[in-house]
Amino acid sequence: MPEPDAEIAVRQSFTRQKFMATIGARLIRVAPGVIEIELPFSEHIGQQTGFVHGGVISAIADTACGYAALTLMPAGSEVVSVEFKVNLLAPAQGDRFLAQGRVIRAGKTLTVCSADVIAIASGHETLVATMLGTMMRRRSE
Amino acid sequence: MPEPDAEIAVRQSFTRQKFMATIGARLIRVAPGVIEIELPFSEHIGQQTGFVHGGVISAIADTACGYAALTLMPAGSEVVSVEFKVNLLAPAQGDRFLAQGRVIRAGKTLTVCSADVIAIASGHETLVATMLGTMMRRRSE
Amino acid sequence: MPEPDAEIAVRQSFTRQKFMATIGARLIRVAPGVIEIELPFSEHIGQQTGFVHGGVISAIADTACGYAALTLMPAGSEVVSVEFKVNLLAPAQGDRFLAQGRVIRAGKTLTVCSADVIAIASGHETLVATMLGTMMRRRSE
Amino acid sequence: MPEPDAEIAVRQSFTRQKFMATIGARLIRVAPGVIEIELPFSEHIGQQTGFVHGGVISAIADTACGYAALTLMPAGSEVVSVEFKVNLLAPAQGDRFLAQGRVIRAGKTLTVCSADVIAIASGHETLVATMLGTMMRRRSE
Repeated sequence: MPEPDAEIAVRQSFTRQKFMATIGARLIRVAPGVIEIELPFSEHIGQQTGFVHGGVISAIADTACGYAALTLMPAGSEVVSVEFKVNLLAPAQGDRFLAQGRVIRAGKTLTVCSADVIAIASGHETLVATMLGTMMRRRSE
Repeated sequence: MPEPDAEIAVRQSFTRQKFMATIGARLIRVAPGVIEIELPFSEHIGQQTGFVHGGVISAIADTACGYAALTLMPAGSEVVSVEFKVNLLAPAQGDRFLAQGRVIRAGKTLTVCSADVIAIASGHETLVATMLGTMMRRRSE
Repeated sequence: MPEPDAEIAVRQSFTRQKFMATIGARLIRVAPGVIEIELPFSEHIGQQTGFVHGGVISAIADTACGYAALTLMPAGSEVVSVEFKVNLLAPAQGDRFLAQGRVIRAGKTLTVCSADVIAIASGHETLVATMLGTMMRRRSE
Repeated sequence: MPEPDAEIAVRQSFTRQKFMATIGARLIRVAPGVIEIELPFSEHIGQQTGFVHGGVISAIADTACGYAALTLMPAGSEVVSVEFKVNLLAPAQGDRFLAQGRVIRAGKTLTVCSADVIAIASGHETLVATMLGTMMRRRSE
C-alpha cells in the first residue's frame, strides 16, 4: 500500500474496533511496519490486584502487531491474527501503557510480528510484556 | 487446597477482576483442575468486523487457565500468568462464548494449562480458539 | 487426499528426512489427522544431564504435527511448519518416546495441530512435552 | 555469577550436550546475557527438501536461550527450558547458521529470552527463525 493509504486504512479499521474504545486505547503512531497504541490506566480494565489485566495488555499488543502487518500489505487487504504468544514480564502497573508492534518478516500470505508493551509511571518505563505473533492477509470484501 | 476452599478462593478472586465485569464474563464452573467462563456477545467487545476481539477471547481463556491452576495449588496461593500462546481458529461470532481451562501438569512452582474457547450460535458450537500457557504460583500477601 | 495416497505421501516424505534417521525416529502410525512417531533413547541425542535434548523432543512433535496436517490436505500438497510452541513438562528420561500429532483445525491454507510426547520407561508413561503449532500447505513442485 | 565463572559453567555444560556434537553445533560467543551458537550445514540434519530441519534450528535457538539465561544466574545454578515458541521464517538453507540468544528479562526463578537464527550463504545473511522462550533456574546438585 502507498503510505498514506496504509495509514488511512489502519486508522479507519482501528476506529471500528469498539473494544479498543471500551478499554480506552488510542492509535498514536502509524508508520511502515510499525504501530504504537497507547492505553491510559483505568480501574475497569484491572485484574484482581488492581493492575491491568494480562488479556488487555495482550489485546493492545496483538492489535499493534496486526496493524503493523497491514501497513505493508497491498491495497484492498485486511488482516487477521492467526496466533500469538505473549510473555507477561512484570505487573502491568502504571499511569499509561505503550504497545509497539513491528513487522519481523512480511510475506505474501503471512506476516510475523513482535510487540513490546511498556508501562509508564512518573516517567519511569518498565517492559511489562513481549509478544511474537503471526498475522494473515485477507482480501477485504 | 481442600476443594470448597479452592472454589471460594477462585470465586473471590474472579469477583475482584473488574475487567471480567467490563466484558460481561461469568465464572460458571469451578472444579479441581477445570474452570469454565461464559461470555455473552455484546457490541462493546467487538473488533473491526463486529465479531468479538481476539484479545477478549484470549483474556477469558487466560483467566480460565489461571484459575484452573489455582484450584490445584495449596491454600494461601495466588496465581499469575507467565505466558500463553493462543491460536485464533475461526471468527469469534456467536451469541455467547465458553472458555474451558484445564490443568495439563501441576508443578510446585509452575502449572501448565490449556484452554479451548467455543462460540455458541443457535445451539451450534464452533471451536474459535485454543491456548497453551504457563501459570506460576505466588504466596498471597 | 484419498487415505492410501496420504499415507504414501507421508511415508515417502518421512523417509527423505535425514535428520529423522540421524536421531533414530520411526513413523509408526499414519491415520487421517493423526501421526505417531517413535524415538528410542540413545546417548547421541542427549543434553547435559544425559536425558534427551528438548530440541529433539520438539523435532519429533513438530514432525508429527506437520504430517498429521498433510494427511488432510489435497493430493499434490506439501507442508511446512509456520510456527510452534512447546512446553517441556518433565525431563525426557525413558527407554523410548512417543510423539502423537493431531489436527485441531484443518483450513485451506493453514492447519493448526497439537502434539503430546510421552516417555516410556519400564512400561510407565510420563507426558514430557506438549505442543501447539501452525502448519501451512504448499503445492509440491 | 562472576563473568569468567559463568563462561566456564556454560562451556562445560555445552560440552556435555552430546546432541550439540551430533549436529555439529559450536559455542562461539559467551557474554553476559548473550550466547552465540554456530552450526555448519550438513546432510544428516536435513528435512525432506534437504534444508536443515526446523527442529534442529529450534534446538540451537533453545540452547542459545538457555545458556544466555545461565550467564546471569548466581553460581551453582543450572537452567532448564520451560517452554519456547519459534517462528520458522524462511527455509533453513545456507552454508552455516548462527543462533543468537539474548536475555529479555532475568528474574529470580524465571528468565525470558529471545533468539534469532540467521542462515549465511556466500556471505549473504537471511533471518530464518525467531524464538521467544522461558527458562527456569535450578540449583545444581
